[in-house]
Amino acid sequence: MEAVTPTERTRLRRLPKRAAYERATINSILDEALICHIGFVQDGQPFTIPTLHVRQDDQLYVHGSAASRMLKTASDTMPICVTVTLIDGLVLARSAFHHSVNYRSVVILGTAVRVDDREAKVGMLRAMVEKLVPYRWQNTRPPTDQELAATMVLRLPIEEASAKVRVGQAMDDEGDYALPHWAGVIPLHLRAGTPIPDPRMTADIATPMHVLDFARNSPAVRNGTK
Amino acid sequence: MEAVTPTERTRLRRLPKRAAYERATINSILDEALICHIGFVQDGQPFTIPTLHVRQDDQLYVHGSAASRMLKTASDTMPICVTVTLIDGLVLARSAFHHSVNYRSVVILGTAVRVDDREAKVGMLRAMVEKLVPYRWQNTRPPTDQELAATMVLRLPIEEASAKVRVGQAMDDEGDYALPHWAGVIPLHLRAGTPIPDPRMTADIATPMHVLDFARNSPAVRNGTK
Repeated sequence: MEAVTPTERTRLRRLPKRAAYERATINSILDEALICHIGFVQDGQPFTIPTLHVRQDDQLYVHGSAASRMLKTASDTMPICVTVTLIDGLVLARSAFHHSVNYRSVVILGTAVRVDDREAKVGMLRAMVEKLVPYRWQNTRPPTDQELAATMVLRLPIEEASAKVRVGQAMDDEGDYALPHWAGVIPLHLRAGTPIPDPRMTADIATPMHVLDFARNSPAVRNGTK
Repeated sequence: MEAVTPTERTRLRRLPKRAAYERATINSILDEALICHIGFVQDGQPFTIPTLHVRQDDQLYVHGSAASRMLKTASDTMPICVTVTLIDGLVLARSAFHHSVNYRSVVILGTAVRVDDREAKVGMLRAMVEKLVPYRWQNTRPPTDQELAATMVLRLPIEEASAKVRVGQAMDDEGDYALPHWAGVIPLHLRAGTPIPDPRMTADIATPMHVLDFARNSPAVRNGTK
């Protein structure tokens, strides 16, 4: 199985049994997560900012306003850190100490480069919209040259990366298993609710199939589990 | 209304209309979010790591293993950034460009201090467990001195902080409102599923009321919306 090579900075030191370096694991977590958090440094101060992302092959893309302080800093050959976290459940143990959370996370370290090629930018925006809701792109007005110019796209190679995954029940101390406390997992799932049509639509636009399908059939694709 | 004072570093420059500095807004987002992402710098490299947090009054607490690289670094009077993000919905616009996400986020900058007082540590751990599931603490074995020694607790004052909130429908260009594309919001909620009992429990421990109540009645307290 293809894997990234752990470096001194991405090798997990705490609880190494939770670590994964397989690309398939890393990619599936990146693809399921709606947002990432980008870490960057400015004047010695770390900043952690949420944003949308999309993966294509072994590259991670983020985008935003061309005027964004974060993107300007991140595109300036500065080291950044992109982290994605999915929450799958609450882990209730017999001891307070062993309470935990089931999760899947990915950390990518590296340097981002700006994507200026028009076709590449449109391709990334298309992938971003299709990741939000499949089949959405063909049901929208495509971006204009002016909109593309106002959008900065950054590309980060998924090279120095690791995943961390916790699954299953609590790991209590052996002596605690005899205690009379209930233990178990409460699963958490991100679910889509009923779509809310924009009141400014002309009255005769019915909710289209791609929106209904998303709300009905892909309740947990954005996060969480299965 | 009590508010934090925006500094040059927390004043929102992009889309300032989305900014909020009221403590009530900041606190409600911090309390609803299950996890935060901590940003810190090590050898010039930013790291962004997910962890659990709990707020008490105007202080944010995080905890972890006393051997944790992140906590050791973050407790070393280094500047850190703690960010919390709740996803409330997908915003589908008529134009690809104006697609967005409804969210609520908080960014806190500052320096964390280690909490060594035994009572304060126990109080924080209790608040952390009760935040996961209300009434859980009294249904667990409390921490031992050894467990407390293995746990590092950090406290970060909520002083230099800001919230950012996006709500409502897409903001399309005026000329696009006549287009035949459906627009609207798909709400997203984090929901609790059916609790999964630990198979290692003795057979006669029924799922207790505090777990059933949580799974039934507080489906979206961990994230998302109402």
